[in-house]
Amino acid sequence: SSIVLLPGDGIGPEIVEQARLVLAKVAERFGHTFQFSSHQIGGIAIDETGDPLPQATIDACRESAAILLGAVGGPKWDDPSAKTRPEAGLLKIRKELGLFANLRPIKLFDELAEASPLRADIVKGTDILFFRELTGGIYFGESGTSGSGDDETAFQSMTYSAGEVKRIVRMAAQAARGRSNRLTSVDKANVLEPSRLWRRVAAEVMANEFPDVQYDVVLVDSMAMHLINRPSEFDVVVTGNMFGDILTDEASMLPGSLGMLPSASLGDSGPGLYEPIHGSAPDIAGKGIANPLATILAAAMMLRHSLGLTEEAEAIEAAVAAVITDGLRTPDLARGDQSKSVSTDEMGAAVVAKLT
Amino acid sequence: SSIVLLPGDGIGPEIVEQARLVLAKVAERFGHTFQFSSHQIGGIAIDETGDPLPQATIDACRESAAILLGAVGGPKWDDPSAKTRPEAGLLKIRKELGLFANLRPIKLFDELAEASPLRADIVKGTDILFFRELTGGIYFGESGTSGSGDDETAFQSMTYSAGEVKRIVRMAAQAARGRSNRLTSVDKANVLEPSRLWRRVAAEVMANEFPDVQYDVVLVDSMAMHLINRPSEFDVVVTGNMFGDILTDEASMLPGSLGMLPSASLGDSGPGLYEPIHGSAPDIAGKGIANPLATILAAAMMLRHSLGLTEEAEAIEAAVAAVITDGLRTPDLARGDQSKSVSTDEMGAAVVAKLT
Ligand SMILES: CC(C)[C@H](C(=O)O)[C@@H](O)C(=O)O
Ligand SMILES: CC(C)[C@H](C(=O)O)[C@@H](O)C(=O)O
Repeated sequence: SSIVLLPGDGIGPEIVEQARLVLAKVAERFGHTFQFSSHQIGGIAIDETGDPLPQATIDACRESAAILLGAVGGPKWDDPSAKTRPEAGLLKIRKELGLFANLRPIKLFDELAEASPLRADIVKGTDILFFRELTGGIYFGESGTSGSGDDETAFQSMTYSAGEVKRIVRMAAQAARGRSNRLTSVDKANVLEPSRLWRRVAAEVMANEFPDVQYDVVLVDSMAMHLINRPSEFDVVVTGNMFGDILTDEASMLPGSLGMLPSASLGDSGPGLYEPIHGSAPDIAGKGIANPLATILAAAMMLRHSLGLTEEAEAIEAAVAAVITDGLRTPDLARGDQSKSVSTDEMGAAVVAKLT
Repeated sequence: SSIVLLPGDGIGPEIVEQARLVLAKVAERFGHTFQFSSHQIGGIAIDETGDPLPQATIDACRESAAILLGAVGGPKWDDPSAKTRPEAGLLKIRKELGLFANLRPIKLFDELAEASPLRADIVKGTDILFFRELTGGIYFGESGTSGSGDDETAFQSMTYSAGEVKRIVRMAAQAARGRSNRLTSVDKANVLEPSRLWRRVAAEVMANEFPDVQYDVVLVDSMAMHLINRPSEFDVVVTGNMFGDILTDEASMLPGSLGMLPSASLGDSGPGLYEPIHGSAPDIAGKGIANPLATILAAAMMLRHSLGLTEEAEAIEAAVAAVITDGLRTPDLARGDQSKSVSTDEMGAAVVAKLT
C-alpha cells in the first residue's frame, strides 16, 4: 500500500519519522509492503511554493491508500495580514478529499491518569469516541464583509443539508454498534435553524436504521458541562464542525496527556487522513524531545480504518501501552520527574522493539 | 426604585421569593424603598397568554430600574414542534431591552471547593469574569431553509458589526481596570470572517483606549482547553454570543456548585436583567429544596450594577459567604451528607438574619 507522509511544520517531521519507523517494522513483521512518499503542507509549503497545499500534494494524496500528517503552523506564518496561512492547507485537504468525518477517541491510559486535571473519581473510565462533521457547517459557509466605520459588518453562514447530516450520523451509529451501543448527538436546536434540521434528520436516521442503538440529544452548552462533571457516561458522540472543534479540544484535556491522542479524518471512499491532535509545538521543534506516541497511535488508526489491518493496529496499540507501563516518558509526560525522561527517538525505538 | 420580578417556571418562583425577602431586608436596614411587581415570562406565560414574553411584561420591564429573573422552561413546553418555546422569551427580552453584555463571574467559595470536578491544585484561585455578547452573532443572524430530501438545507448567519464589538470590548476592558487589569478576547479568527473583524476591532479599541490593560487573544478551541487545565490564569474574558454560551457553561462547572452562580445582562442604559445561571430544575420544583443563593447573589449584582448600591451589594455577598461558612447547605451543596441539609426558606432566612 502507498502511504503519503505530510510532516509539515515544527515537530511534525520528528514525530512522523518515528511513526514511519513503526509502520516499517509492522510491514516487516506481518509481511506487508508499504511505500512511503513525503509531500509538503502548511508553513513549509508556503515558504517553498507559496501555497499551503500545493497541487502536487493533493495529487499524491488522491493516489494513496492513506495519509499520515504531522502538524502545521508556527509563529513564522502567524501574520494575520498574510495572503495565506498554514491552516488553509488543512481546511483545503479536508474538503478536497471529502473527509467529512473526524474521529477523535478520548481514552485514558491508567498509568497517566494522575496527569488529568480532573479528579480521579470523575475521569475514571472515560472512553468517548467523537465524530465531528468536518467539511460542512460554518467552516465552509458563505462569508463576506460590508460597510465601514461602526457599521462595518462581517458574516459567515452555518449551513447543513440533510444529506450531510445523514452520512455522519450513520457512520457514528455504526461505530456505536461496535462499542457500547450508545450515541449522543449534540446541537443547539433551541437557537439555530441548521441545528433543528440536524436534530430532526438524525432522529429519523436513528429511528429507521438504528433502532437498536440507544440514542439521545444534548445541547452544546450542556455538553460542555457534562464533559467536565460526568465524562465517563458517554460512548459515541456526533456533532457539527464548529461544536466538534470546541468539544473535542475540551475533551482532549481529560486524559491529561495531549501527546497521546490521535485522530482520523475519513470520507466515504478514498484515502483517510491520520494525525496527532496536538499542534506543531514550535517551541520544542528540533530538540528531539517531542512525544511521538499520538502520531504512532494515528498510524494504528490508519491500519485499522484505511488498510483493514486490525491485528496490526492492535499490535501497535499494545506496544504503546507496554512502553507506558514500562515507565518510559517523554518530557511532556514525565511531569515532576524529568530526570528519567526519554527522547523522541528513544520512545519510537522502544515501540519498535515491542513489535519484534 | 422599582424592581420587576420575573419568577418564571419550575423552581423560579421559590428562589425569586427568597431573593425578594433579602432585598426587602436590605431596604429596611439601609433605608431604601424598593417597589416590587411580578410579571410573566416563559412557560407559564405561554400557558396563560400564548406568548413567552407578553407585551405587559416588556412594558413593565422598560419602566423598571432593574429586573430579577428566576428561570424558564420545563418538559411541559419542550415539544420541538410547538409554535413557541419558553426560551424564546429569554432571547426576546435580551433583544428588546438591548442587553448586549452578559456578565458571568466564576469564583470559587473555598468551603465548597472540594465539590469541584477539577483537582484542587488546578482550580485553586480561579476568579474569572466573563463578558458574553448577548444580542448579536449567530443567535440573531438571518436564517432559513430550502430544498427537500437529501438536499434540504438550513442556514443561520453569524454576523458582527464593528460597533457591536466595540461596546462590549469597552465594557469588559473597563471591568478589567477594576480587577487585575487583564483582558482575554476569544474568537475563531483562523476560520470565521466575523471573528477576524472582532479580532481587529478589539485590538484597535485596546490599543487606543486601554493601553494600560494587559490584553491577549485566544482561539475558542484553545480556550475550551485552558478553562480545564489552567483556569486560574484568566481575569476578564470577552467573547461573542455562541462562544460565550459554550464557554461560560463550561466554566460554570469549575466551582462545583452551579447553585451559587449569578449573572447580569446589561445594556448601555435602562434596566439590567439579573438571574441565576442554573435552569428551572423541574424535577425539584415545589419541593422547597432549591438553592436560592445564586438568585440572592444575582440580587447583589443588581444593587451594584443597576442601583449603584455597592455597600448594600457587599453586605449581601458577605451574608451569603457567612451562611456557607456556618455550614448551611441546601441538598445540592450537601453532597455526601444530606442529613443536615436545609430548605430553600431556611437558607433564605439565614441570609436575612445575617443582614440584621
Ligand atoms: C487549525 C484549525 C483550522 C483547525 C480547526 O478548527 O478545524 C484545528 O483547530 C482542528 O481542530 O483541526
Ligand atoms: C436557553 C438558551 C436560549 C440560552 C442561550 O443559549 O443563550 C441559555 O443557554 C443561556 O445561556 O442563557
